[in-house]
Amino acid sequence: MNGYFRRPAGVKDYLPPKVRKKRRIEKVIVEIFEKWGYEEVIAPSFEYLETFGKTGKSVAEKVFKFFDRHGEAMALRPDITTSIARMVATHYSNHREPLRFYYLGNVFRFQEPRKGRDQEFYQIGCELMGIAGLEADVEIILLASHILEQIGIKDFLINIGHTKFLEGLLDELDDNPSLKDSIAQAIKEKNFVWLKNLMEESNTKPDIKNKFLALPGFYGGAEIFHELEKLPSNKKCTEALSELKRVWNMLKQFTSIQLTFDPGLARGMDYYTGIVFEIYSPKSGFPLGGGGRYDSLLDNFNGYRPATGFALTEDVILSILEGDMEDIYEPYYLYYNPSKYMEAFQKAEELRRQGYIVKMVPDKNV
Amino acid sequence: MNGYFRRPAGVKDYLPPKVRKKRRIEKVIVEIFEKWGYEEVIAPSFEYLETFGKTGKSVAEKVFKFFDRHGEAMALRPDITTSIARMVATHYSNHREPLRFYYLGNVFRFQEPRKGRDQEFYQIGCELMGIAGLEADVEIILLASHILEQIGIKDFLINIGHTKFLEGLLDELDDNPSLKDSIAQAIKEKNFVWLKNLMEESNTKPDIKNKFLALPGFYGGAEIFHELEKLPSNKKCTEALSELKRVWNMLKQFTSIQLTFDPGLARGMDYYTGIVFEIYSPKSGFPLGGGGRYDSLLDNFNGYRPATGFALTEDVILSILEGDMEDIYEPYYLYYNPSKYMEAFQKAEELRRQGYIVKMVPDKNV
Repeated sequence: MNGYFRRPAGVKDYLPPKVRKKRRIEKVIVEIFEKWGYEEVIAPSFEYLETFGKTGKSVAEKVFKFFDRHGEAMALRPDITTSIARMVATHYSNHREPLRFYYLGNVFRFQEPRKGRDQEFYQIGCELMGIAGLEADVEIILLASHILEQIGIKDFLINIGHTKFLEGLLDELDDNPSLKDSIAQAIKEKNFVWLKNLMEESNTKPDIKNKFLALPGFYGGAEIFHELEKLPSNKKCTEALSELKRVWNMLKQFTSIQLTFDPGLARGMDYYTGIVFEIYSPKSGFPLGGGGRYDSLLDNFNGYRPATGFALTEDVILSILEGDMEDIYEPYYLYYNPSKYMEAFQKAEELRRQGYIVKMVPDKNV
Repeated sequence: MNGYFRRPAGVKDYLPPKVRKKRRIEKVIVEIFEKWGYEEVIAPSFEYLETFGKTGKSVAEKVFKFFDRHGEAMALRPDITTSIARMVATHYSNHREPLRFYYLGNVFRFQEPRKGRDQEFYQIGCELMGIAGLEADVEIILLASHILEQIGIKDFLINIGHTKFLEGLLDELDDNPSLKDSIAQAIKEKNFVWLKNLMEESNTKPDIKNKFLALPGFYGGAEIFHELEKLPSNKKCTEALSELKRVWNMLKQFTSIQLTFDPGLARGMDYYTGIVFEIYSPKSGFPLGGGGRYDSLLDNFNGYRPATGFALTEDVILSILEGDMEDIYEPYYLYYNPSKYMEAFQKAEELRRQGYIVKMVPDKNV
């Protein structure tokens, strides 16, 4: 006996009762993806480190790196969307029709496990590539909602935003890029105190400053749009707001979807370029998933292709649902005397043909 | 456009037609495992490097290593059996009934991709823990055969051996451990020339030497047992031969199984302790899978537990079968005018409820 059976921090062992529930949920989700015309792909678990160069700073810090035999730097995928973008660049460069893909896979991120975050966790997601119109954003959000409803998550809330809205607002500031980055960060984190300090450093006119100071408070329903129209504005902001309103109005036709709007919504990835969203439930402290438009990610590989998608964090969903799921597992235990194994085996086979799950167990007293 | 869309050597992109075939095969295999009372587990993709310390020298060389935030050495799993042994140590230390687990998962090994070997590949396998009797070895081999038959592999051959037979033979040599290791390696590789050179260095008596020189030629059917009885022998050899004969006779009751016997059969892992086997098909240059008994692996964690199992290399099986599998995929393409998206979406939903796969495609001319 020794200590070699420690499990690394932030990774999980899935034992059979949990796996059965996980597979049941996946089956429902896969059927929906298939019906909606999404086709499954499987990406490699690692890519060249540089492939994830555009995934985002906050993710780059969390990448597990290693070197291959030839000394080239590899990265365990921290995100599957980037891998799929690379796959599309490799295999579909001449394909111009919309592409719809889904995946079930694990991702890897250096994280502090004591904060409840895993270093390896499972995602289920999809990508819709080749449709520039807002209806693709709507399809993706409807699909995510439909999946959550079908697997039995009743009380989720979808928070939407637009990357260009905050970008446009920041263009109105007369500050250096580093200060602008900090201001953006303070708004994303809804950190009023930090934002106030930053605004004191800012060279921007006082009336615009005051409007910025109000920003972290903007979060809610359709009434927010009116408030936002009072803010400093330019073409970028106006277009972003207009896109948000159109998506909002289409989604509002589905009364089952609870929507909120957050102008400072930021997802962890740097590749988003339009409508973004994050999904929450009162039953978990972690988002259930999220996604958005990433029209320029494919530019990093082999040319522009509009794209949007989302990923659900399967482990969060499983933790919400598993308590209410029954584990139905009723095997037939067939006890046999080892000296008469072959007879018992024939009996087991007969029972299996009849549909039973048969576990053979040696017992000298039989 | 740039070069970031290179894919690392030795990893694969699975595109939808291949994934559909892969999932069809997996479904058949999973149903069989379930019927036989095996339950699915999911192990972490990486463990502490030391966890794989007993997996074997040939595997240890191929491990992808990396360091976590605290500077501890981790290894991407080169093998799933070792991870499951660690899981059993963690969660089932007080469980004394037989345990049956199966898994579908990827493993990672540093390999030279130009030799056709992948650095990441998929295995489907199982472990039967807690039964010391030979009927467990028989169950495992019957299960592997049954799976291969059911997925449509008609012409496979199972080559069986016993780790203790060669160990016993080597005990008869009057040589140092390093020379014995080389002799064992030459026999495993069926390298007659190397074996001849090693025997010239050996201090063993000429009559025993001559018998060793004949060893790489031993391979075939039941007649081999008679030949082997002429070899230098001891308790270890006799017991190994007796176990092999008993397993052989049980398996021979299934006429569909083509069996061969190879006294030098060695699997890549060092943890095997008894009956081992490897599965071949004339349709592939790589083994389809293999397995065997590994009674002492769990000793490395928290105490003795007899165990046996096998793994199929899913990629090899898929490459054999996929050419003859039809890819049935018939989506309904619903063309819509983007200005009337919501109407088209309702139509798509209706078709999906009727069972269709519906892909929505924008078309301004509709």
